[in-house]
Amino acid sequence: MENEAQIQIQEAIKTQGEVVRKLKSEKASKEQIDEEVAKLLELKAKLGGDDGKHQFVLKTAKGTRDYNPKQMAIREKVFNTVVACFKRHGAETIDTPVFELKETLTGKYGEDSKLIYDLKDQGGELLSLRYDLTVPFARYLAMNKITNIKRYHIAKVYRRDNPSMTRGRYREFYQCDFDIAGQYDAMIPDAECLKIVHEILSELELGDFRIKVNDRRILDGMFAACGVPDDKFRTICSTVDKLDKMSWEDVKNEMVNEKGLSEQAADLIGEFVSMQGGRDLAERLLQNPRLSQNKLACSGLSDVKLLFSYLELFQVTDKVVFDLSLARGLDYYTGLIYEAVLTQAGLSGDTLNGAEDSVSVGSVAGGGRYDGLVGMFDPKGRKVPCVGVSFGIERIFTIMEQKAESSADKVRTTEVQVLVASAQKNLLEERLKLVTDLWKAGIKAEVMYKKNPKLLSQLQHCEESGIPLVAILGEQELKDGVVKLRVVATREEVDFSRADLIREIRRRTSEA
Amino acid sequence: MENEAQIQIQEAIKTQGEVVRKLKSEKASKEQIDEEVAKLLELKAKLGGDDGKHQFVLKTAKGTRDYNPKQMAIREKVFNTVVACFKRHGAETIDTPVFELKETLTGKYGEDSKLIYDLKDQGGELLSLRYDLTVPFARYLAMNKITNIKRYHIAKVYRRDNPSMTRGRYREFYQCDFDIAGQYDAMIPDAECLKIVHEILSELELGDFRIKVNDRRILDGMFAACGVPDDKFRTICSTVDKLDKMSWEDVKNEMVNEKGLSEQAADLIGEFVSMQGGRDLAERLLQNPRLSQNKLACSGLSDVKLLFSYLELFQVTDKVVFDLSLARGLDYYTGLIYEAVLTQAGLSGDTLNGAEDSVSVGSVAGGGRYDGLVGMFDPKGRKVPCVGVSFGIERIFTIMEQKAESSADKVRTTEVQVLVASAQKNLLEERLKLVTDLWKAGIKAEVMYKKNPKLLSQLQHCEESGIPLVAILGEQELKDGVVKLRVVATREEVDFSRADLIREIRRRTSEA
Repeated sequence: MENEAQIQIQEAIKTQGEVVRKLKSEKASKEQIDEEVAKLLELKAKLGGDDGKHQFVLKTAKGTRDYNPKQMAIREKVFNTVVACFKRHGAETIDTPVFELKETLTGKYGEDSKLIYDLKDQGGELLSLRYDLTVPFARYLAMNKITNIKRYHIAKVYRRDNPSMTRGRYREFYQCDFDIAGQYDAMIPDAECLKIVHEILSELELGDFRIKVNDRRILDGMFAACGVPDDKFRTICSTVDKLDKMSWEDVKNEMVNEKGLSEQAADLIGEFVSMQGGRDLAERLLQNPRLSQNKLACSGLSDVKLLFSYLELFQVTDKVVFDLSLARGLDYYTGLIYEAVLTQAGLSGDTLNGAEDSVSVGSVAGGGRYDGLVGMFDPKGRKVPCVGVSFGIERIFTIMEQKAESSADKVRTTEVQVLVASAQKNLLEERLKLVTDLWKAGIKAEVMYKKNPKLLSQLQHCEESGIPLVAILGEQELKDGVVKLRVVATREEVDFSRADLIREIRRRTSEA
Repeated sequence: MENEAQIQIQEAIKTQGEVVRKLKSEKASKEQIDEEVAKLLELKAKLGGDDGKHQFVLKTAKGTRDYNPKQMAIREKVFNTVVACFKRHGAETIDTPVFELKETLTGKYGEDSKLIYDLKDQGGELLSLRYDLTVPFARYLAMNKITNIKRYHIAKVYRRDNPSMTRGRYREFYQCDFDIAGQYDAMIPDAECLKIVHEILSELELGDFRIKVNDRRILDGMFAACGVPDDKFRTICSTVDKLDKMSWEDVKNEMVNEKGLSEQAADLIGEFVSMQGGRDLAERLLQNPRLSQNKLACSGLSDVKLLFSYLELFQVTDKVVFDLSLARGLDYYTGLIYEAVLTQAGLSGDTLNGAEDSVSVGSVAGGGRYDGLVGMFDPKGRKVPCVGVSFGIERIFTIMEQKAESSADKVRTTEVQVLVASAQKNLLEERLKLVTDLWKAGIKAEVMYKKNPKLLSQLQHCEESGIPLVAILGEQELKDGVVKLRVVATREEVDFSRADLIREIRRRTSEA
């Protein structure tokens, strides 16, 4: 490296160091500081590397994170709720490999294909990391000639996006998908997907939410009715999709000035996309002079009407809104589409990371009907109609973590019920014998891995890890054939015979 | 492509087609046929691709597989057993990203580094898929300056190995790791790792097993005592490691003729590596005139002796063998090493895939002490002593699947307790209302997604999916305000009021 380049890096290190110091002095969020520190370390590594003394960069890959035990405990709780709901609705589960043949993903994601992670060509097949769970699901159905299944799949997916980790956006993140494949009567499986969204978001207690629904056929029919030329449907649709982040004025401006739509067509669209309602709106639009002329729009509107009649039976209409501005991006949707948004972050008075993020944390689940995707994989093009929903679970984790932070209750990261402790020296053997008995009885128990731990440090370990009970052995207890059981919270101590001890531990730690 | 190349491929397709036909006529195993069919499809795709009519290859990447719902049900059962044991022993859990910075993995796996999957350089960092869970764990500890933790981690790892899928060897496979990090008294955490192996293999009922233990220090001391030159320790050690697959004659031959060891040294090694025993063997070897001269060997032997005293308290010495021929490959081990092998596959009379595989299915868990690995990541080289065990869970899945195949009990892939059915037409609304009530009560319930399904097809669905109960609605039942509950197995039918129905379903489906 030329000296000049090296000097430039040293300058950059100095500047970056100041950024970090400033953030720290301003008490910025941990994520923000970590991100800037990572940049600093990378710069330092660059310098080190060319010096010959390569400095090791101790970090995870950009846009990814480790989960620590506390985060895992919260994650487990969320997954339990989600899986319990999927199972209640009779779903099976499958798993697919983390990478697919590159060509399996080709042509499924439109412009977003540039975000796919490819594996290096090390001889053999060309592979890519999965971008979602829907395309592997469709590949699985076609490959195994499955024509109906109700399945869930919880796994990580990968997108080379610009991560905003403070907003809960990562390059590696979990998706929880529920899908129903099969030729069924209209809107029954679709309604069950919305029922599931309603159940899960209610049970997780994330705060109030809305589920917006629309239909691709209504969107296309609306564009036709408003005089949008056929070849502009998709690009105008992607502009409409920005309405949750941009004002109507800006959206209209993009349509007219960037995409060359007539002002008259844009205004007609503007009228429609401001409409929200329920079954009544669908009925009204079926009478609308423009829309009622369009066959596609009518079949979409009839289905939305039918959908709402099922949603009433499922008792979920309180949260579902028919919203003509909803226009989800993915190419493969063919009918109903939906998206669940949190209307408040579920945090007392405050949104997730200040007001500017209140929008981006909004969407927590989305999905729709994709009747053509499986056919893209079938050698004979046989179609398998599908409808499904995907939960953006990382955002839900982030909210749950913040709730846990602000709660008085400590999150436990183990489930240990009892620590087997000793009050005097030279009792390791007795501790190991007793803990063996407890494990045999199915009790979650620990000993400290020291020959002669101090009683105080054993009790401290219980306080720190939230272990509720201590079984204490001392010379007197051994002589008497008993074990002293101490309740950590109250410091109450009672002697029990070995036989009674197990029963007593079970009694005191059984879930109320 | 030249015509000649094309003709060659066509020839290859013909030959491969015959291979497949022959296997089918011989009723070869499904895996074997699938593997050969995959090759055939690849050849056909090659031809198609160059024709201009590209034929899509509908397959998963080489060495990987989907899990279908039945396999997932078995996998869930195995994971539940494993996780319950880890939790009983007080472990927390963490998760790390599926890929790491390439340099994090560099220099950790010796020769096997060539098996690491790299990601394509798409601008940004150079990344590789994780090869095991141990190196990411060490990176995590160093990065977060954690000096003691007991954690488990269940996740997929990736090796560009030559897969033998019929033997349960894949390029993507699960590992279940349990590790204890921290500065503790000798052999206490090590003994708990062996206790855990004993518990899990016993609970899974895979058949009889042995846990072989040895120590890196004993191996090194033994090599020194037998006159192996220092610079040949590692290569001789890797030859010893082959003793489970090769006869002593072949191993000796490799040592002497390929690796240039003296015949005398080889014979001395031969004596040692034939030794097996327990605590008594460790005591005897401490008196051995050659070994007792070697400090390393002595500290290893004393620790093995101490280990056995703890294993006796843990009541696991029935399965643990001190075996001087055990020499696990990984570079990072520094003390105790161990490996669990099934001594019979747990299948009545038969081994997994015929006699030739009875060896390769043997090893199902392995681990050891690695006190230096975390220090390789710490900028100041601070060490964190670690010991752990990793379960090769794919092989366990394969055995459990075969057990399920040969068992009379059908594996259920859903947990549905009741199907809400109708006996007449036009009762979809009533079915949806009732299933909503059941879901609300936490009951796992389904309806068929048809407006007017036949009662027979509803009952057939129950038979196929193992659903034990059917709640049947008919006009008479609606008039009477009752629901007919039918037990699928006995065809018994009783009417219940709505209020009693839920109680009755719970009673009949509660785990005994």
